[in-house]
Amino acid sequence: MIRDWRMSAAMALVLALALALGSHPARGGNGMETSERYARGMAALTALAPDKARAVQEALGGVAPDLGRFVVEFGYGDIFTRPGLSPELRQTATIAALTALGNAAPQLAFHMEAGLAAGLSAEAIVEIIYVATVFAGFPAGINAIGVCREVFAAKGITVTPPDAYAGQPADRRERGLAALSVTSREAGERVLASMGDMAPDFGGWLLDFSYGDVISRGVLSPGAKEIAMIAAATARGTMGPQLAVHVRAGLAVGLTSEQIVETVMQMAAYAGFPAAINGMLVVRDVFAATGS
Amino acid sequence: MIRDWRMSAAMALVLALALALGSHPARGGNGMETSERYARGMAALTALAPDKARAVQEALGGVAPDLGRFVVEFGYGDIFTRPGLSPELRQTATIAALTALGNAAPQLAFHMEAGLAAGLSAEAIVEIIYVATVFAGFPAGINAIGVCREVFAAKGITVTPPDAYAGQPADRRERGLAALSVTSREAGERVLASMGDMAPDFGGWLLDFSYGDVISRGVLSPGAKEIAMIAAATARGTMGPQLAVHVRAGLAVGLTSEQIVETVMQMAAYAGFPAAINGMLVVRDVFAATGS
Amino acid sequence: MIRDWRMSAAMALVLALALALGSHPARGGNGMETSERYARGMAALTALAPDKARAVQEALGGVAPDLGRFVVEFGYGDIFTRPGLSPELRQTATIAALTALGNAAPQLAFHMEAGLAAGLSAEAIVEIIYVATVFAGFPAGINAIGVCREVFAAKGITVTPPDAYAGQPADRRERGLAALSVTSREAGERVLASMGDMAPDFGGWLLDFSYGDVISRGVLSPGAKEIAMIAAATARGTMGPQLAVHVRAGLAVGLTSEQIVETVMQMAAYAGFPAAINGMLVVRDVFAATGS
Repeated sequence: MIRDWRMSAAMALVLALALALGSHPARGGNGMETSERYARGMAALTALAPDKARAVQEALGGVAPDLGRFVVEFGYGDIFTRPGLSPELRQTATIAALTALGNAAPQLAFHMEAGLAAGLSAEAIVEIIYVATVFAGFPAGINAIGVCREVFAAKGITVTPPDAYAGQPADRRERGLAALSVTSREAGERVLASMGDMAPDFGGWLLDFSYGDVISRGVLSPGAKEIAMIAAATARGTMGPQLAVHVRAGLAVGLTSEQIVETVMQMAAYAGFPAAINGMLVVRDVFAATGS
Repeated sequence: MIRDWRMSAAMALVLALALALGSHPARGGNGMETSERYARGMAALTALAPDKARAVQEALGGVAPDLGRFVVEFGYGDIFTRPGLSPELRQTATIAALTALGNAAPQLAFHMEAGLAAGLSAEAIVEIIYVATVFAGFPAGINAIGVCREVFAAKGITVTPPDAYAGQPADRRERGLAALSVTSREAGERVLASMGDMAPDFGGWLLDFSYGDVISRGVLSPGAKEIAMIAAATARGTMGPQLAVHVRAGLAVGLTSEQIVETVMQMAAYAGFPAAINGMLVVRDVFAATGS
Repeated sequence: MIRDWRMSAAMALVLALALALGSHPARGGNGMETSERYARGMAALTALAPDKARAVQEALGGVAPDLGRFVVEFGYGDIFTRPGLSPELRQTATIAALTALGNAAPQLAFHMEAGLAAGLSAEAIVEIIYVATVFAGFPAGINAIGVCREVFAAKGITVTPPDAYAGQPADRRERGLAALSVTSREAGERVLASMGDMAPDFGGWLLDFSYGDVISRGVLSPGAKEIAMIAAATARGTMGPQLAVHVRAGLAVGLTSEQIVETVMQMAAYAGFPAAINGMLVVRDVFAATGS
């Protein structure tokens, strides 16, 4: 009988995978009660967004109750409550990814609220969108700011535009070079050189706009900016080379390898498992090359 | 005169391509009347969605009548009416792809109706969205369920949550291993091993959530689940390695090579020709490696 | 002090990059006043869309004034006002890209208005969407036509369906072969041959639908059609091989290498820097192979 064969093949796999998965206990795996995962997830979700937690379940309830359960168990019980990345940085990653994907406005609104609850300032949320705009273009950024406006208006939040370049040179090129130099100098030089003869102004834009106008801004910490870029690049799944650059940059500005791995893992929930797996293979190559 | 040269070059190409296209008569190609393709397409479209068929034409009519014509002729006359993939599985593929793309809610609503007309149960449609959620993330899945709710409510359809794991172990890891073992065992082992030292819990999630919670569900047939995954991966165009895994898995659970080719071909209409071409090249490599 | 080190490292980089960026003055880079870029951008934006220019700024103003500034300075001051690609072709590229991305309806509406202001006819805008439909699928095309309908209705514009195949054979296959033969003959033969045994009808569709129904249409110039395809493929970021084919095709129909580079560069604003960088590397390879 096929079922029997499946089970015994499965048992053989258990042995093989025990090796592959090493000695780390797989949280949320064997022997953990679903109800425990649900309870833990619901507690986390409720702490972030008291009135929304039940609303999501109810909205999904009639048609797809298991999807509601998966969101709570997997999204919050398994992922969100993990150590290794702070709640603020988890929301940073999610806001950046949903901005870059550009097709999940309701979830983006939810995670802006969750971000505020997790300790992000309204100004920080705007800055995350700026960073994602470099990765996904102005339409994605403008639409995310539109979501912001609604969320902030509903909460009576006023944004105070920050002094984003305090203590930095007024010259964009100089700011851009400085930002590039502490994060991705070598990769930046390579990209700029490869554009040099064909599209020299493009190299200038990369330096002046991406680095000088946006990445140099001092509102988010350097690590938070790299988390946002790693999340956006992983979620879109079309930016392998840039993901590699910013994994290196993340390490250069002091992110731990665990924070980077957690950011990429979290994308499984927001952009799907293939995006997270493919991102993880990029991370793996960078870690191998840098000995991280 | 350029036009003349084009025509004679074209004639030379006809000869070259006659070889490339082999002896298969290209349906919808030379010598078939457009009106015949239109009539066949409109008949298929009307059978699926009587009140919508004309509505789509009228909506496009004023501004882009040729787009309306292309939809009917190409989408329905050429693609949908082909043998080789059942109407249910064609709608399965389309619902999965549009869920994964996440930016085509009106078309997703249309294809849910068409899916019901083609014989999919409401429960099966929800399951297709679950499978696509693994590939595209929770926001995509939640938004597709939102579309579902509206379509089902308008039709007075109530969903009965199925006993999704009937006859299977209660333990997610065990269910996941069993599901992996009949579909993608070797590839699964490779991915898990590659995560082993760096992100062991991620391997656990892949097993417990993707396979144990979702892919193991017994509501859709194994073949339908693989069709949904092949469609989603082809449509997004960012998941080459995962597409290859699920083409192999599709063959392993008994899909014919024709069904797989038809699924990927159909994506030309929903995600564009480049997505379908690039997907087909992945299929081709897997078929070559497996002798399919 | 870190800051000091950054500055001196930056100065070293300036020297290195001076070489990489060559002798071209980087417009919008060092020494150009932000206010000058803003003024130039706002003048361009106002010329295109008098009532929208301030509206965008006001919409972004309360929450993200710097994003509004970036749009004007970078999107219009740096990119849109560059020589090397006409305003019509710039809007052609943007409309194609936003149609293909499928998640930026408000911006698509804006650029349809801007396209009309830049000299595109309503019929031409519809044709750009047809071309993008080949690259992104029918849902993307249908939704873009929906945006069109609203924009045209608000302006009281009526579309006159053109005689799209005037002077061409009635047979789709013949038209397709002729269109392929002047643009992408060699690549087309390769793709068709690679499908030959596995999915021969797919080759037929590519020829009959993509080339025979759409690309052969005589409303847009051959160059404008290739610009639309290059923009769509760059923006989606999942179509490297097809981008290469259409860069070659663009050169074959008489686009200058500057026009192609400008199209790809412009995508930085609409699809993000990684998409533009990755597209540029494809362009670079084609230019190297063709000596362009």
